[in-house]
Amino acid sequence: MDPNASGLTKRLAEAGQSHLLQFWKELGPKEQSDLTLDLQGMDFQEINGFFKKTTETSGSSNQEMDARLEPVPREVLGSVTRDRESLKDWEEAGLHCISQSKVAVLLLAGGQGTRLGFSYPKGMYDVGLPSHKTLFQIQAERIFKLQQLAEQKHKIKCCLPWYIMTSGRTMQSTKDYFSRNSYFGLDKNNIIFFQQGMLPAMDYNGKIILENKGKLSMAPDGNGGLYRALRNQGIMDDMERRGVEFIHVYCVDNILVKVADPSFVGFCVKKGADCGAKVVEKTNPTEAVGVVCKVDGRYQVVEYSEITLATAQKRSADGRLMFNAGNIANHFFSFSFLRDVVQKYEPELQHHVAQKKIPYVDTEGQLIKPDKPNGIKMEKFVFDIFQFAKTFVVYEVLREDEFSPLKNADSQDAKDTPTTARHALMSLHHRWVLNAGGHFIDENGRHVPAIPSLKDGTDLPIKCEISPLVSYGGEGLEELVKGREFHATLMIDGNGVHELVKNGV
Amino acid sequence: MDPNASGLTKRLAEAGQSHLLQFWKELGPKEQSDLTLDLQGMDFQEINGFFKKTTETSGSSNQEMDARLEPVPREVLGSVTRDRESLKDWEEAGLHCISQSKVAVLLLAGGQGTRLGFSYPKGMYDVGLPSHKTLFQIQAERIFKLQQLAEQKHKIKCCLPWYIMTSGRTMQSTKDYFSRNSYFGLDKNNIIFFQQGMLPAMDYNGKIILENKGKLSMAPDGNGGLYRALRNQGIMDDMERRGVEFIHVYCVDNILVKVADPSFVGFCVKKGADCGAKVVEKTNPTEAVGVVCKVDGRYQVVEYSEITLATAQKRSADGRLMFNAGNIANHFFSFSFLRDVVQKYEPELQHHVAQKKIPYVDTEGQLIKPDKPNGIKMEKFVFDIFQFAKTFVVYEVLREDEFSPLKNADSQDAKDTPTTARHALMSLHHRWVLNAGGHFIDENGRHVPAIPSLKDGTDLPIKCEISPLVSYGGEGLEELVKGREFHATLMIDGNGVHELVKNGV
Repeated sequence: MDPNASGLTKRLAEAGQSHLLQFWKELGPKEQSDLTLDLQGMDFQEINGFFKKTTETSGSSNQEMDARLEPVPREVLGSVTRDRESLKDWEEAGLHCISQSKVAVLLLAGGQGTRLGFSYPKGMYDVGLPSHKTLFQIQAERIFKLQQLAEQKHKIKCCLPWYIMTSGRTMQSTKDYFSRNSYFGLDKNNIIFFQQGMLPAMDYNGKIILENKGKLSMAPDGNGGLYRALRNQGIMDDMERRGVEFIHVYCVDNILVKVADPSFVGFCVKKGADCGAKVVEKTNPTEAVGVVCKVDGRYQVVEYSEITLATAQKRSADGRLMFNAGNIANHFFSFSFLRDVVQKYEPELQHHVAQKKIPYVDTEGQLIKPDKPNGIKMEKFVFDIFQFAKTFVVYEVLREDEFSPLKNADSQDAKDTPTTARHALMSLHHRWVLNAGGHFIDENGRHVPAIPSLKDGTDLPIKCEISPLVSYGGEGLEELVKGREFHATLMIDGNGVHELVKNGV
Repeated sequence: MDPNASGLTKRLAEAGQSHLLQFWKELGPKEQSDLTLDLQGMDFQEINGFFKKTTETSGSSNQEMDARLEPVPREVLGSVTRDRESLKDWEEAGLHCISQSKVAVLLLAGGQGTRLGFSYPKGMYDVGLPSHKTLFQIQAERIFKLQQLAEQKHKIKCCLPWYIMTSGRTMQSTKDYFSRNSYFGLDKNNIIFFQQGMLPAMDYNGKIILENKGKLSMAPDGNGGLYRALRNQGIMDDMERRGVEFIHVYCVDNILVKVADPSFVGFCVKKGADCGAKVVEKTNPTEAVGVVCKVDGRYQVVEYSEITLATAQKRSADGRLMFNAGNIANHFFSFSFLRDVVQKYEPELQHHVAQKKIPYVDTEGQLIKPDKPNGIKMEKFVFDIFQFAKTFVVYEVLREDEFSPLKNADSQDAKDTPTTARHALMSLHHRWVLNAGGHFIDENGRHVPAIPSLKDGTDLPIKCEISPLVSYGGEGLEELVKGREFHATLMIDGNGVHELVKNGV
């Protein structure tokens, strides 16, 4: 395994990356062969090109960005609170598309649960619901139920394929997990795993960083790596073969996600959109969320770090924040748009640079953990392609109904934790029961108010969980709960309606 | 000290409360005299009357309540986000009233910090700001500054009297605290302490509960005890003597409270209102906050436990919740309205019943701690008098600018804690600096984005505190910060603009 013989030494020299072999002689045979394998798979000229393009473009200042921003115009906006008269139509249109097997779901699941202190794919995380279902299982069951609803309504067998993008680090464990769980009742032929790419971390001079003497520092290429992965792994062909016309893309960490939401799909289809973004209203100027808006006339997500407070504070005449379309990584694409992106536009996209503290070995071979950023990771974002849309639409939904991401481990100052995710789901299901005419009673037999009071100052929801196999979005519960009284913990699942007993009583 | 001789035995027998003396012979002389003193001060016929009136009225069901509700009409609403063109006028009108010494501030401070694990008056709590100022000090300094602003603008000496309602439990320690701190620079003659009343807890049969053999179970009579206390302690006369025409009433626990807010006062005065409520927008149907609305055509605060989810979820055409005027215990009264309330309407007000678990001694003299509610406390609420207003107005402000109450000790699931209060204040002051043209830089000398990113998943604000003696509401900071760069922790106070050093460096 001589790097000279294989031409690797020459390729590295030409690319200015010869330092990657500086510890070659100190490596054992296994380390040498691993390193060679890693290096042989890499296109250094391309990577250098990414670096050059990314770092040459100096970002515009926040003040410059401010001047170029325009809010989403009302005419491209659909809103579950402001367009209630259309909701039913949209939902029916979406359900019809699903029944025709024209809709696919695409899940961005490359992330590990590192920030949760969990070394498996994030989708395998159990937030502590009464059922102990994982994020993957919840989403799988929603797909199952939605297929069933479409089939029942339109009396036709349909299929809702599920494309799951993993990363190199999560591919095998994700596949094993689904296999062990018999694909949660879904047809395994309709679950298609594929893998996003990785890119090396580089120092400020464009040199690839070694994380130890024989190993490059690698990271996934961002959720926008989706488009490259779709091309490289033949996913677009698979979609075409299946006759997929519309794709719902979402991120694994949102416990409330309405997978393939028929209202959203139907809204986008009826508007003739090639690209759509589901958003929640940003209500506080300093909330750390990106907003969908127009920049120089093209749609884009502007990150919260890119605008000034003055712009974040701007309000429309109706009192709402002017830039309030909070991005939640939940998108609609037409197949033809996605194909064009994958074939034509993706290479035009530039990487975003994230300055990071990246552990590295110095020329003496010492492992250094820097206390300041010392290099960059290059990423693309899934929303980078909004700019290419011809008919872009925005669909505003309620945060409490549809968005509660899992990002961090539980701790006092943390946001978006297992606890907040669990509470969000149980609170939603509690409201479903009330809206279907059920009631909860406390240990003294008295009705619990619809809005739980703050007991001892904590905001704990009524414990209530409804299996997605019973209800996708709150439908079909009247016959199970209307006029009935329940004690928490209430479970509604394939075994019927039952109260979980405590301490065996 | 013979209860027979004093006629007490007879009075108790007539009121059906003779059981209060059942352990008389077991008490020592000190206990006997304390109990006699407590009992002699009580009007049992009146208390029995309260009980009868309170418990006879069966509350209407939530469904019945729903049918009677109407939202606040737009024409009585002033909004800082929707009426921006009027804000300056309102503020000037309010400041003019203050300069004429026509405005007084009335603080509801009867609460102890029990839920905070703090046995002193809540106003003495230090939430851990860099300055370690207490709630009382922050509010005192805001009053000081506002007086100064009014005097500077109108070139006239003015006075903003501060009426502080304590309870029997907090009176002495509150007075001592202000005295020890030289009234925070305010004229002690313009700080008037008075005390709200107490009422005994009663069992479901109307018998007063003994918390031990020689002591009644007593509790403050609710913040609506204000009106009775104003009458009984001659406060209205004091106001009249001073020529007070407008009163701003607020609760001690809100760290962001704009004491005597000139915009709010000016809005109410310009609208010719006799009564006004400051509110924040309720955006989530299940948020546990009371809402200002009309019931049978009269204004009222409807508690979140009184309405159904269906009503809480109702939305207006603009997508906002229909009942969204979230009450924050922050009110405006004209003097003549308050006088009428105190003299005429207060006795008409009915107590609210809170069912509680109240520790008691049983007939054997055993102390029992019940695990179910066994009795009631009777309270009036400060907002109970809205119904008597002839011209009622509502003023909507931004939660992030004006409302962050301190209710509970820090813990993972707790809301409204010292941490949330501290963060709310520092985040507001951070925004003031940015809006005045200042910038923050990090340890590497780089600009910190206006919207702080989530470091390690926690939402920690930039540490920044501005003394109310420097700025009441963000004004006057340009000359101190414009174009300058700061490291956190930034302090702006009487000593100027300075960065707090860490570890002495």
